[in-house]
Amino acid sequence: MDKISTVAIVGGTHGNELTGVYLAKKFNNNPDLVTRPSFSSQVVFGNPKAIEECRRYIDKDLNRCFSRPDLQNAILSSYEDTRAKEIQKILLPPQGLPVDVIIDLHTTTSNMGLSILLSSEHPFLLRLSAYLSSLSDEVKVCCSPKSQNAVYLDSLSDLGFAIEVGAVPQGVLNAELFNKTEKLVLAALDYFEAYNRREIPGIPNALTIYNYTGAIDYPRNAQGEIEAMIHPKRQFQDYQPLNPKDPIFLTFDGQEILYDGASTVYPIFINEAAYYEKGIAMCLTQKKTINYSNL
Amino acid sequence: MDKISTVAIVGGTHGNELTGVYLAKKFNNNPDLVTRPSFSSQVVFGNPKAIEECRRYIDKDLNRCFSRPDLQNAILSSYEDTRAKEIQKILLPPQGLPVDVIIDLHTTTSNMGLSILLSSEHPFLLRLSAYLSSLSDEVKVCCSPKSQNAVYLDSLSDLGFAIEVGAVPQGVLNAELFNKTEKLVLAALDYFEAYNRREIPGIPNALTIYNYTGAIDYPRNAQGEIEAMIHPKRQFQDYQPLNPKDPIFLTFDGQEILYDGASTVYPIFINEAAYYEKGIAMCLTQKKTINYSNL
Repeated sequence: MDKISTVAIVGGTHGNELTGVYLAKKFNNNPDLVTRPSFSSQVVFGNPKAIEECRRYIDKDLNRCFSRPDLQNAILSSYEDTRAKEIQKILLPPQGLPVDVIIDLHTTTSNMGLSILLSSEHPFLLRLSAYLSSLSDEVKVCCSPKSQNAVYLDSLSDLGFAIEVGAVPQGVLNAELFNKTEKLVLAALDYFEAYNRREIPGIPNALTIYNYTGAIDYPRNAQGEIEAMIHPKRQFQDYQPLNPKDPIFLTFDGQEILYDGASTVYPIFINEAAYYEKGIAMCLTQKKTINYSNL
Repeated sequence: MDKISTVAIVGGTHGNELTGVYLAKKFNNNPDLVTRPSFSSQVVFGNPKAIEECRRYIDKDLNRCFSRPDLQNAILSSYEDTRAKEIQKILLPPQGLPVDVIIDLHTTTSNMGLSILLSSEHPFLLRLSAYLSSLSDEVKVCCSPKSQNAVYLDSLSDLGFAIEVGAVPQGVLNAELFNKTEKLVLAALDYFEAYNRREIPGIPNALTIYNYTGAIDYPRNAQGEIEAMIHPKRQFQDYQPLNPKDPIFLTFDGQEILYDGASTVYPIFINEAAYYEKGIAMCLTQKKTINYSNL
């Protein structure tokens, strides 16, 4: 990427994640905030109907509707399938240039601080992440494989990423997290401007990155009902090591269930509300360090 | 009330408040837990369809459907209006005795610990509350006037009350709060048993009670959109004094809005997710102490 010319900032891909919804409103009402001399920004409200109803989605999760086959499948006509095709046309206009960068704003009930979720280890994204994570210890960087993330909205761009902020309930604005998220977005925009001017700020020697390796479901009975909760010792411990034999769940009868993995992992999305229906109690990651010289 | 003969424990009056839903499931699967020699208990799932969809409600808030006029209004036929009439028949059977006590289990995104919400200052409820609040500092006791609470499910009984637990997001089980809620319910049942045996445990000399006096909405623009968030200094400060000129909201532009009331109040339900649509940023209470001799 020689130059960033266009940036899309998306809020409300999930209609009940209010930080993104209200940041998008703020940016939409104050375009100067997200405008820089060397590129233009566009604000997109991901799921307008879900925003109106303050629900994650109407028919299905919009942020799972962006696989190339699904976008080309004319039979898929749910509200979100249709909206995904509209968003594709907005961000990758058939008679125009595709947007260079997509920033998709999310929140989570998990204690993930200010997480940057990359869809690839593109060197541009890694350098950006290294810069942003140097600004605050709360900034963490995750990456998921193509097989996992090719359905996300931000996968429409090679330089797409999500900002996932928490812990905050669905349907709630937390002023402190709102302000931190705004600062992070504006810092990313400042970075793009500096990049375009060939004035990239100094970045740390190494970047810690959490690579998605899989997910764990809640223990369930034959009817699919959950039989245990996240263990109190694990609640809010996103990005902390989970070692073999550590308590991971607690049944409703008070029985501890221990992690039966063979090696240490770093869970994220622990107790995310929207993931109960997806069969995910937490996602597992491996922690690795990328040295600056490799960026 | 000479003797408590029947107790109803209701979970899932709001389908996305999972503590109540899963406690009701646990009690339903283990009736011994809620059975005592001197009374019988009945478990009711308030809003089955909303529980299935993990939403607060389907058509309208079930916990606002219990006014006497509405229950008698045959024209009201939404899912929740119909369900309210069914619940009335279950708890106040036309050919049987009404249930003596109703315990309705709720959660909130506000930091309300283990709150007991009374529909009246009935001496029996005050003594029970004094006992339960002596068990843990996290137990707080609130009371709202009839004009406010006559629409609640628990108002079907003179001895109805709600347990409101938080902070916990909608759609999330927090194991620690689940366990504390269960202990509180079982302690209430033990109290009823002791009451029936005329072996009432000692209660403190005084009970602190928070009386509902009104609610404050978010600042909104002409279109009804909110223009400010709960101030970070006020977030999670339920039951803490709010004094005149204390910061209460923060606009999206970072402007502080101060409380313009004339005297100190004690806010509860601060930043409750479900209250954005109701026009409530927080409820205000006055704190008072009832001396034991008056109980």
